[in-house]
Amino acid sequence: MALLRDPDVLIPEIHPLLQDRWSPRAFDESHVLDAVTLATLLEAARWSPSAGNSQPWGFIVGLRGDATFEAFRTTHSRGNTAWTHRASALLVTLRQLESGPDHEIPFNGYTAYDLGQAAAHLSIQAQALGLHAHQFAGFDHDAAKELFEVPDHWAVTTGIAIGRLADPSVLDESTREKELRPRTRRPASDFSFAGKWGEPLELQP
Amino acid sequence: MALLRDPDVLIPEIHPLLQDRWSPRAFDESHVLDAVTLATLLEAARWSPSAGNSQPWGFIVGLRGDATFEAFRTTHSRGNTAWTHRASALLVTLRQLESGPDHEIPFNGYTAYDLGQAAAHLSIQAQALGLHAHQFAGFDHDAAKELFEVPDHWAVTTGIAIGRLADPSVLDESTREKELRPRTRRPASDFSFAGKWGEPLELQP
Repeated sequence: MALLRDPDVLIPEIHPLLQDRWSPRAFDESHVLDAVTLATLLEAARWSPSAGNSQPWGFIVGLRGDATFEAFRTTHSRGNTAWTHRASALLVTLRQLESGPDHEIPFNGYTAYDLGQAAAHLSIQAQALGLHAHQFAGFDHDAAKELFEVPDHWAVTTGIAIGRLADPSVLDESTREKELRPRTRRPASDFSFAGKWGEPLELQP
Repeated sequence: MALLRDPDVLIPEIHPLLQDRWSPRAFDESHVLDAVTLATLLEAARWSPSAGNSQPWGFIVGLRGDATFEAFRTTHSRGNTAWTHRASALLVTLRQLESGPDHEIPFNGYTAYDLGQAAAHLSIQAQALGLHAHQFAGFDHDAAKELFEVPDHWAVTTGIAIGRLADPSVLDESTREKELRPRTRRPASDFSFAGKWGEPLELQP
């Protein structure tokens, strides 16, 4: 019997910080992110792992109502524009494509992967502080690069909205419909292999 | 006064799962990873976020002594060969480069970023189970792709060693020297900006 192929047999319990993490759109407009909380989120990103410790990540941080926040908002897709104004903070994530005068990186084949890890650590830290993070890619990357004067050896990658969860009733109908959709994932058996790619990993309990 | 620029003023406390996570080389050769633990690690990866929920990740899993483990080991760099045999499991991480008959992905611009997140969630779950994960890129990627018959729309990306921490005395001298080096990171002020790239984020406590 294959453990991974029959979720009724075993649904493994993962850590609550990972289990309860999701990417909401309904953020509480009255919540303000204080400086210590923001520093803690960045500290979590700081200690994430990277290839050869190259730490190829960067964050441009806007707090609700400030110029960075509003400038970043002008680049958002229509779908994201409908909810990002309620976040307490909006971060632009950047990755370093190659060494520059600001920072040498020993490898540059893993900068997106490593930025993803830093964003994950930051998001999980948000969860640990009773907040939620919602990462998104739906914005005009070229416009953001120009707005924030990002040099060519860095790439604008994603946005991260951070805030306190609010009731879905704050959302417009179309956004609320997305908010209330059940979370789904492929079964682990679809992406867990042994021996070679595509060969199922058989786990005997 | 800028909070991030003077770490003596404030060292934010991050969650212990993130604080205590690091990438050891000294794994306990007597520790065996059971099926439930392995399923739990994969479940943690499964619930990580991805662009448009595309879930572009895959894992080829070897357990110490099995054919997958030994085959992957033949591709490791000399530095990694010195310690990976002690891990309880060795995973090859894969990312899907574009849609294929096995799995459609709506976006393919974030596959490395999303795989990095899945690897981070898996590593943090390992930490929650009293284990450690050590991600590495030092192996012959072309050889691993061929060994594990990875199709062209997937890319071999990193390795993840998972196991129980052992005393550094199990390591050879050169590996032990690496193991005992203090962990370092750039200050958060080097990668945290506001207004534009390179402009320091000033946090008032």
